[in-house]
Amino acid sequence: MADFWQMVEFSHLLMSRQISKGAIVIDATAGNGHDSLFLARIVGEDGKVYSFDIQEKAIANTARLLAEHHLLDRVELIKDGHQNLDKYIKKEIDGMIFNLGYLPGGDKEITTRKDTTITALEKGLKLLKYGGIITMVVYTGHPGGREELEAILALVDGLDPHIYNVLNYKFINQKSAPEILAIIRRRAEERSS
Amino acid sequence: MADFWQMVEFSHLLMSRQISKGAIVIDATAGNGHDSLFLARIVGEDGKVYSFDIQEKAIANTARLLAEHHLLDRVELIKDGHQNLDKYIKKEIDGMIFNLGYLPGGDKEITTRKDTTITALEKGLKLLKYGGIITMVVYTGHPGGREELEAILALVDGLDPHIYNVLNYKFINQKSAPEILAIIRRRAEERSS
Repeated sequence: MADFWQMVEFSHLLMSRQISKGAIVIDATAGNGHDSLFLARIVGEDGKVYSFDIQEKAIANTARLLAEHHLLDRVELIKDGHQNLDKYIKKEIDGMIFNLGYLPGGDKEITTRKDTTITALEKGLKLLKYGGIITMVVYTGHPGGREELEAILALVDGLDPHIYNVLNYKFINQKSAPEILAIIRRRAEERSS
Repeated sequence: MADFWQMVEFSHLLMSRQISKGAIVIDATAGNGHDSLFLARIVGEDGKVYSFDIQEKAIANTARLLAEHHLLDRVELIKDGHQNLDKYIKKEIDGMIFNLGYLPGGDKEITTRKDTTITALEKGLKLLKYGGIITMVVYTGHPGGREELEAILALVDGLDPHIYNVLNYKFINQKSAPEILAIIRRRAEERSS
């Protein structure tokens, strides 16, 4: 069943299928660094990860985790909100991960927010290459979480299906399970439907 | 991207991860035989597939497809509704596939129906082994399709999360895309959550 869980750890699995060595990717929510570590591994030594977080503690935790794995040189840590990503990244990206909610083990009053999440997603979509992927893990148990999810769903539901595949999944009989989204920008040759 | 589509052809992918050679499985909706063929391959020569359909045309199409692949001997074709599966199968099962709606290329007036689908699902759940899996692909574009989906969701939403994992996914920006469900009965050692 480890296999099954690996399977449905779909945000990482889909990401690793779409991302090659040398990729440019964004971790929109560095948090404790698990996604940044995962991304640093899959982009390889020629790739680059930009990791955003507004909390000092998150940046420090992420830096420590990456240093432990000798991968800090592949990652640029940015203590700023992900809604400002275009200030730091001017080129196209291959992928982006959002893990929305509050910092595990941190201050639960500090959460991601609908408006800044939507701005970051819109900016990420603009930078996304053909074949690139954005994954979002959305927890809804905290105040504002449901509204954040609804704003995201409204945005992605309107994406042109000839250009984007948007997969939405969740474990429906587990009340605290997050909603997960994977948005893939289709390559030109795949847009035959 | 063939890779990606293979990935998200999740009902087959999850099924093939859970099902071993020698398995006993049910195709609740034989249709044109694609799921039965897939199941016949993964259960191996010691396994067994029971394929149900109420339409003569579906049974004939499935038989033809299986014969072409020399796999008809692994499959018992049953021209009866899946709600009667307990008349034919008395032992535990490893897996079950539902592909709900109407027969592609057939009479669109003949569709699966809420009541018989729910009865078949309940009976399948009763027979399902630890580690076994039921997948459901639910099209909702035809009359009654939405009600059928809602009845299924109400049932699976109430399944004990310590006993069953229920994964629900769909392509949300594609209006005619089906809802897909995968129900896995957890093995005893996995029920630690």
